[in-house]
Amino acid sequence: MTGLIKPLHNVYDQLRRLPGVGNKSALRLAYHIVDMKEEDVRRLAETLVAAKQDIRLCKTCFNLTDGDICSVCADEKRDRGTICVVGQPQDVTAMERSRSYQGVYHVLHGCLSPLDGVGPENLKVKELIRRVETGKVEEVILATNSDVEGETTAAYLAQLLRPLNVRISRIAQGLPMGGDLEYADEVTLAKALENRTEL
Amino acid sequence: MTGLIKPLHNVYDQLRRLPGVGNKSALRLAYHIVDMKEEDVRRLAETLVAAKQDIRLCKTCFNLTDGDICSVCADEKRDRGTICVVGQPQDVTAMERSRSYQGVYHVLHGCLSPLDGVGPENLKVKELIRRVETGKVEEVILATNSDVEGETTAAYLAQLLRPLNVRISRIAQGLPMGGDLEYADEVTLAKALENRTEL
Repeated sequence: MTGLIKPLHNVYDQLRRLPGVGNKSALRLAYHIVDMKEEDVRRLAETLVAAKQDIRLCKTCFNLTDGDICSVCADEKRDRGTICVVGQPQDVTAMERSRSYQGVYHVLHGCLSPLDGVGPENLKVKELIRRVETGKVEEVILATNSDVEGETTAAYLAQLLRPLNVRISRIAQGLPMGGDLEYADEVTLAKALENRTEL
Repeated sequence: MTGLIKPLHNVYDQLRRLPGVGNKSALRLAYHIVDMKEEDVRRLAETLVAAKQDIRLCKTCFNLTDGDICSVCADEKRDRGTICVVGQPQDVTAMERSRSYQGVYHVLHGCLSPLDGVGPENLKVKELIRRVETGKVEEVILATNSDVEGETTAAYLAQLLRPLNVRISRIAQGLPMGGDLEYADEVTLAKALENRTEL
């Protein structure tokens, strides 16, 4: 971006590295930030650094936490016999929002993606196997995304877990709630038909 | 947002106050930030604070600057006889990008908006009048936005400047470059017709 004074350009440059922030948004945000009160900018800046410093990974499930173990693992009422495997910490938040799961989680911190050089050794796969081997785990629910990487990861984990004498399941695929048949893609429709439930 | 740990919620809360950042983007950005390297978060935070500290308003035209006067006012080649009046510092950047203006600017820092309690005393209006009174100004181009507030501000300034024996103009309204007649609103079309130029 030409014609911006240096400190403003620096803000613009930092902001447009963030996901979902294009050049135009970055410029708009940069102008907004230099127009904010200094104390507000300071509070924003300190909040970011504090979060990065205070947030660790749960020792058991690798969810984000500001303590040693996360709030789900710390909750005595959760069923430790069921582990729901997800890709990212934000997927735990999404699952919890649905209020329909009572077990615990395991966060892989990514999915297999050979093109990006992400193999099993870059994910918390070893740790999942160890948990299943040593714990009293009855079921592992594979809840990775429904895209190529997620499906591959689920298939890979299923293979790895098979010898461990544990029930393995995959979250259902089908039409999303409120979804129109007219606008659904063919693969989703095929899955929805294949996994139909009896009424 | 329920179920977020405190430091993460703080980031989310700070981010969604920014313009154009909705709840979903704020959450996505917050997760991205706690996933960044600590040094990168620190650099981001420091850049914001540094920009706020280092950026001042130009003493002459109230554009943003990291010195005493802005780069336009400091440029000896610019024509000081023409002042282009804009609402915000980002409007100066937009104008400069067009590379079609050789004069200097005056940034009002807002437009008249009685509903939001913004009157002439909240804008750099007094300072504009003083510049026109004391300087060798030949023309004032009113280049505020083409919305209700911008039009009102332009009309108000025109009235105020009339006695000062200076040429007053307003930027043209019409069809934007590449614009389709089919999709243009009625007011724009009416203006485009009214301000037609002879070929």
